[in-house]
Amino acid sequence: MASSSIGVFDSGIGGLTVVKELFASLPDSRIVYFGDTARVPYGTKSVATVRRYAEEDTELLLQYDVGQIVVACNTVSAVALDVVTRIAGSIPVIGMIAPAASEAVKVTQNGKIGIIGTLATVASGAYEAAIASAAATAGKTVTTYSQGCPLFVPLAEEGWQGHDVARLTAKEYLGDMIESGMDTLILGCTHYPVLADTIHEVVGSHVRLINSGAIAARQVVAASSDSPDRDHLFMVSDLPSRFKNVGERFLGRDLPELHQVIYKESWVVSR
Amino acid sequence: MASSSIGVFDSGIGGLTVVKELFASLPDSRIVYFGDTARVPYGTKSVATVRRYAEEDTELLLQYDVGQIVVACNTVSAVALDVVTRIAGSIPVIGMIAPAASEAVKVTQNGKIGIIGTLATVASGAYEAAIASAAATAGKTVTTYSQGCPLFVPLAEEGWQGHDVARLTAKEYLGDMIESGMDTLILGCTHYPVLADTIHEVVGSHVRLINSGAIAARQVVAASSDSPDRDHLFMVSDLPSRFKNVGERFLGRDLPELHQVIYKESWVVSR
Repeated sequence: MASSSIGVFDSGIGGLTVVKELFASLPDSRIVYFGDTARVPYGTKSVATVRRYAEEDTELLLQYDVGQIVVACNTVSAVALDVVTRIAGSIPVIGMIAPAASEAVKVTQNGKIGIIGTLATVASGAYEAAIASAAATAGKTVTTYSQGCPLFVPLAEEGWQGHDVARLTAKEYLGDMIESGMDTLILGCTHYPVLADTIHEVVGSHVRLINSGAIAARQVVAASSDSPDRDHLFMVSDLPSRFKNVGERFLGRDLPELHQVIYKESWVVSR
Repeated sequence: MASSSIGVFDSGIGGLTVVKELFASLPDSRIVYFGDTARVPYGTKSVATVRRYAEEDTELLLQYDVGQIVVACNTVSAVALDVVTRIAGSIPVIGMIAPAASEAVKVTQNGKIGIIGTLATVASGAYEAAIASAAATAGKTVTTYSQGCPLFVPLAEEGWQGHDVARLTAKEYLGDMIESGMDTLILGCTHYPVLADTIHEVVGSHVRLINSGAIAARQVVAASSDSPDRDHLFMVSDLPSRFKNVGERFLGRDLPELHQVIYKESWVVSR
């Protein structure tokens, strides 16, 4: 019998915005979450390093008999979904990119779609490819505009949503996109929903924001609730205290007890 | 014969502001640098995790026959200098905290000293302790004010020094300190010299800024230059490309070839 547990991982805390959606849509499912808080962030690191981390994160979740894996990190979804899928074998893997791309193509009226994300996500071109594919299927013509916004993650973690610094940073990053006349903007990082109000204010209320995590969460299938262990399991790689404080703000409710996962390592020089 | 190589490590790129000082003061010395770019930043992570990383970073440098070790990271200097010193054995270790604390006590006229750093550095109270000790020795009475500034590191890495966002962020973080009437401010993070002009503008030109890395670099002893290998060695744990671009801005000159150091790991659940 397939496990009813839903495995979810992220570089850190942003994936909790996806768990928030899962709690709302599938309240009877058990969540096994891992946030790699000892190595966060992923979005400013190289593709090779993110792929190695994605492999290790997936192997950790597979130790907990999960029935499906949600890659609640746009960076991993953009550059390492194939790694996760290969290691997961027959277990279904849900990434953040394709669902949000399809939704953006569906809702755009003027065919102008903006994409914001980490430097790694934007550099990958994964959203552009997924949007082009969805547009071809839908017979629509679309134009995309993308922008890496590396300061949005630390701003969200600092709790400065709504602060003038967040507004000014959003204006700096999004100015060219606003000029483009886009009517749809993909929040291509699971941290960004925390800044959604400020981003919406800056780009204008006529622009439709696509929350990539919320859209992807719809693809998660309800699983049977006959598992003997009904408690959610939340794991992090750094000490849990800071994750708990910021995480409860991201999640909008209390977190259960957090477990720390550590790793042993040895340096190897690559020449 | 003691090695003439100076080992320097940091969580990432900030330590290059210290290397810049070493290149100026000790141009004949060989530098062996390690930046842990695959796990950066350290300053938002827990003491336990930073201590584990510091141990691993030190063990890496010791493989390269260094004659002294410069901990070019205020966070490690604040919470894990004992770890580095223990592992280094008879090799001298230079941290960032004590030299800057002594300098601040020496230059303050009104005894009011501000300290800015990462969350981990500020929470440790290491600067307060070192300043109290230096003040007792000097027979001075001092009062300290401290503030964690977690957005300064990503702002420096984004290259937004001088930008309105940096100015507004500095005003937000430093407002209370300015009110205190401090005449001396310790830049207690090796990233901050990159933002020094903006910080100086916000706190006022009458405030003396103490560059912790530059002060600590004076404690590094000139070493004999008869090593057979005269080339500097720069290692990073993520791919070198981004480090090279941002690093040359921090260093103020070209970097030599960069080597990547990777590590192998396995997860261990800590219950």
